[in-house]
Amino acid sequence: MSTYKVAILMGSPNDRPTMEKAAATLTDFGIEADVRVLSAHRNVAEVTALVSTAREEGYSAFICGAGMAAHLAGVVAAHTTLPVVGVPLASGALNGVDALYSTVQMPPGIPVATVAVGGAVNAALLVVQMLAVSDAGLADALAVDRERRAAANLAG
Amino acid sequence: MSTYKVAILMGSPNDRPTMEKAAATLTDFGIEADVRVLSAHRNVAEVTALVSTAREEGYSAFICGAGMAAHLAGVVAAHTTLPVVGVPLASGALNGVDALYSTVQMPPGIPVATVAVGGAVNAALLVVQMLAVSDAGLADALAVDRERRAAANLAG
Amino acid sequence: MSTYKVAILMGSPNDRPTMEKAAATLTDFGIEADVRVLSAHRNVAEVTALVSTAREEGYSAFICGAGMAAHLAGVVAAHTTLPVVGVPLASGALNGVDALYSTVQMPPGIPVATVAVGGAVNAALLVVQMLAVSDAGLADALAVDRERRAAANLAG
Amino acid sequence: MSTYKVAILMGSPNDRPTMEKAAATLTDFGIEADVRVLSAHRNVAEVTALVSTAREEGYSAFICGAGMAAHLAGVVAAHTTLPVVGVPLASGALNGVDALYSTVQMPPGIPVATVAVGGAVNAALLVVQMLAVSDAGLADALAVDRERRAAANLAG
Amino acid sequence: MSTYKVAILMGSPNDRPTMEKAAATLTDFGIEADVRVLSAHRNVAEVTALVSTAREEGYSAFICGAGMAAHLAGVVAAHTTLPVVGVPLASGALNGVDALYSTVQMPPGIPVATVAVGGAVNAALLVVQMLAVSDAGLADALAVDRERRAAANLAG
Amino acid sequence: MSTYKVAILMGSPNDRPTMEKAAATLTDFGIEADVRVLSAHRNVAEVTALVSTAREEGYSAFICGAGMAAHLAGVVAAHTTLPVVGVPLASGALNGVDALYSTVQMPPGIPVATVAVGGAVNAALLVVQMLAVSDAGLADALAVDRERRAAANLAG
Amino acid sequence: MSTYKVAILMGSPNDRPTMEKAAATLTDFGIEADVRVLSAHRNVAEVTALVSTAREEGYSAFICGAGMAAHLAGVVAAHTTLPVVGVPLASGALNGVDALYSTVQMPPGIPVATVAVGGAVNAALLVVQMLAVSDAGLADALAVDRERRAAANLAG
Amino acid sequence: MSTYKVAILMGSPNDRPTMEKAAATLTDFGIEADVRVLSAHRNVAEVTALVSTAREEGYSAFICGAGMAAHLAGVVAAHTTLPVVGVPLASGALNGVDALYSTVQMPPGIPVATVAVGGAVNAALLVVQMLAVSDAGLADALAVDRERRAAANLAG
Repeated sequence: MSTYKVAILMGSPNDRPTMEKAAATLTDFGIEADVRVLSAHRNVAEVTALVSTAREEGYSAFICGAGMAAHLAGVVAAHTTLPVVGVPLASGALNGVDALYSTVQMPPGIPVATVAVGGAVNAALLVVQMLAVSDAGLADALAVDRERRAAANLAG
Repeated sequence: MSTYKVAILMGSPNDRPTMEKAAATLTDFGIEADVRVLSAHRNVAEVTALVSTAREEGYSAFICGAGMAAHLAGVVAAHTTLPVVGVPLASGALNGVDALYSTVQMPPGIPVATVAVGGAVNAALLVVQMLAVSDAGLADALAVDRERRAAANLAG
Repeated sequence: MSTYKVAILMGSPNDRPTMEKAAATLTDFGIEADVRVLSAHRNVAEVTALVSTAREEGYSAFICGAGMAAHLAGVVAAHTTLPVVGVPLASGALNGVDALYSTVQMPPGIPVATVAVGGAVNAALLVVQMLAVSDAGLADALAVDRERRAAANLAG
Repeated sequence: MSTYKVAILMGSPNDRPTMEKAAATLTDFGIEADVRVLSAHRNVAEVTALVSTAREEGYSAFICGAGMAAHLAGVVAAHTTLPVVGVPLASGALNGVDALYSTVQMPPGIPVATVAVGGAVNAALLVVQMLAVSDAGLADALAVDRERRAAANLAG
Repeated sequence: MSTYKVAILMGSPNDRPTMEKAAATLTDFGIEADVRVLSAHRNVAEVTALVSTAREEGYSAFICGAGMAAHLAGVVAAHTTLPVVGVPLASGALNGVDALYSTVQMPPGIPVATVAVGGAVNAALLVVQMLAVSDAGLADALAVDRERRAAANLAG
Repeated sequence: MSTYKVAILMGSPNDRPTMEKAAATLTDFGIEADVRVLSAHRNVAEVTALVSTAREEGYSAFICGAGMAAHLAGVVAAHTTLPVVGVPLASGALNGVDALYSTVQMPPGIPVATVAVGGAVNAALLVVQMLAVSDAGLADALAVDRERRAAANLAG
Repeated sequence: MSTYKVAILMGSPNDRPTMEKAAATLTDFGIEADVRVLSAHRNVAEVTALVSTAREEGYSAFICGAGMAAHLAGVVAAHTTLPVVGVPLASGALNGVDALYSTVQMPPGIPVATVAVGGAVNAALLVVQMLAVSDAGLADALAVDRERRAAANLAG
Repeated sequence: MSTYKVAILMGSPNDRPTMEKAAATLTDFGIEADVRVLSAHRNVAEVTALVSTAREEGYSAFICGAGMAAHLAGVVAAHTTLPVVGVPLASGALNGVDALYSTVQMPPGIPVATVAVGGAVNAALLVVQMLAVSDAGLADALAVDRERRAAANLAG
């Protein structure tokens, strides 16, 4: 397995129930998940400090969950060239369409890898896939995960 | 009249034709417009530096125009308690709905005063209105502007 | 502090639970909130009377919450050059998208400073920001509010 | 035939090419069309004056075309119990969805009879239908119009 | 008062709770409401029979409520030149946007007077307004209704 | 091959350029295409007459193209139990979303087989697929068509 | 009656309550329904194996229900020239609009006959209609079904 | 630098102008781009063959561009645990919203890293970021690219 470290950020404490699924999935693959509540707008100094030194601090990627005008993933991506996965969250009257557009429609130069609204598990799997490109152990673990999910669906 | 100074920021040089209308409107009211191309994502250091000291540097407000995942106004608002007016711009396939949602759906604590998609003139008028609350000269100028627009529409 | 007076209007009594948050926020900053239920369509005479003389009566700004075809903010803005903040409210089958578009898409000449659907707290903060441009005490209070919100989020 | 008079209002001179079709259709049925450019926001005094006395002045109905945050029909409807037909117009980045929602989603008590985006001809026909309820001549003319349109489509 | 008769049609028995409000409103104005469940698709023969002879049978207008692909108002309008008011209803996953578009976007020649999603009360008031153009008693009743609604809102 | 006959209806002469592609595709498979301009609203008598006797007249299916409040496919489906394929067409300000919702969101009991906005070729292929269930020659022709399209894409 | 066999596939066990309605409807018409949970993404091998040989195995058509990025119907259609009916399902934050677009907007060459969001009953009826083109018994059964539904609605 | 190989797939030859930008960006970073036109629906066998063995054949990731019901990225992701980046493309009447939803709303277990509509450059940069997690040379190249883009925007 591995000793990777991934930061999972979320804009509000209300996002925990969804974003903890990303942490649990990473943990299943033996990857350390550093979970933090950090708003792109209310905690901009802390976000900047954490992200700007992330590569040196040994982080491999970021997973950022936010709702409404979901700027968190984009703001993180502006401070690092590590991969940033954005998880739009459904909150407020527009129910996640606002968060989806705010996360995925990034301008050229600063990508955010966006998953489905509420797609915290897939965000974690995506990070595992990134790391598995050069890690045969993780690639094997992903294959096992696929088989497990296939069988579970057939049995459903 | 007055000696106010307002910063007009835009995310990309392509936004100039629209955002220059905000500058022209401010100028009509005798307000200095400091126009800059500064992307929330590509020029985050410059944005932070400018905005963090804006009140001390004598700025009264910000007008921020951006398209797609339009984070500029929100990012600016995170660094200042001066009023920030957001102008969603229509660019890309989603034609401004993405920019509108990304600008207006701000979380509690960090407001962005959002105007219509492409509404650069109204962004400027809104800033004038803010300043006119305590400036009778600007209030008079706004009244004149209203009369002029009313007459122009009737004559149309 | 200050002795400002701000009118908070809403189109229907059903809007009270949301709009009272704007009043509470203003009160926290020592600003007087004059809360009234006044429909743009059903109480047009009262709206016109109140708004047309608002500057002389000492009001500094308007905060207008309405749902569905939310005309209230625009109708108020047509009668005054004081700043008008519009709060789109989620009611009815379209859940606030109708109110958002009806509030934010104002034509050139008559701006409405629009906040998020249901964003009554931010509407109040925006008004405080406007007043704080020329009021150092309010500016200091805003800075304290920011710090409090930042800490609350970190502790969440 | 008849000697009815119908007011056709539009928010901006740019709306003339579409709204003149409503006038032409009314004229075809021998109904007088009083066409005026009157913005709900920029010409609110003129709108109020015209509409408040419309029934006494012999108007039978209003047709109101406007784009973006299309408040015109609703504002007119607030000042009269004559039937008001709203024509949402496609202008600006949102291409008429904003005008449609702003026109049709009226709250209980103040109806606006909304037609399709750009549907000026149908707005006029709808007014003719209203008048034809108690006017056999207009009812006959409507029947002829239907036959003409049916034949034209079959020949197309 | 009057002896008008208006047909209120709805596509499904599930629509009754909403559409009965239209009947109650008409009754308040002394207008007879003939309420029927008739689907545009499942009861097309009955719809055609009823509508084709409606003018001769003394009906003054139709109010048609339907959800999803809401064709009922349009199908009724195709068979009569009496005014047809369409009430889009929220049902199914799209929550009324489908019904709104299906009702309001009628092609030139066959208008449907569309009200808000679920706007059954306004549909009835709109019919009263149509009839009041040539009925001073109904016009007076509408004025009273307006005053009552204005007062109720102020007291809310 | 076969001697099937399929009716292709469209609401307006403007729909011909798109809908003729359905006819051409059917012809490629040796199926007779009976193309007619018949509006669900303006030519309701002709539509009813044609559709009600279609099975007896030897038609196998209907393909119906319409824009805006696209009722044609649903109205046809109400008069026959033959398969009805609906082609939403992009016309007017809403650009086909209205036609899509109006076509696909049919209530239980009266299905319309809906294809993509403007998908006239697929509408024809779908009819061929229906007929090929019990016609080996058409099934073989479909297999050849698939191979041709696969090769064309690879060569593109 | 008949001895047809139709495969009903769904992407997830959660889709059973809706999709079983399609099976029940087919059974009412004496058609065998082969119901399977098979995800287009998690069980792609099983899907390919089943669909590729479906015509030889005696299947007449496919009904595919899926939510979110609903690829199932399109993936099935890529492997067969039998008719494929797609049922978009409402799940997740976007509530079925995503599934509708993912199902209906197929490119030229590979049609999917799409029904309403959640429209499992209509999916089954559509398959019966396809088979009834060349099966008088099924055509008669469809006529009876129509009459039953018409009467039920009138009695509602 | 590196000797990575990335497959860039697109559903139609029409997608080349956009997707070639991804190839050019990869080439700028010294990464081999294997560009192919392969429809998820029309070339499913070729897609399956290519993707199923991709890890063994030395591919590091996939970039998939498709419009309308954009299944390509999801279908590719179903056959590999390599990272798959999806680029929704604007084509057809819905202008890319359909492709965005079809690409991003993947179910748990099979992630697709989605970028903006038309975001081919960012798709390539995202792949470079993934590879740069364990490749200091690429990380340095990304830093240079960021600086170049920042400067270009400031000079704009």
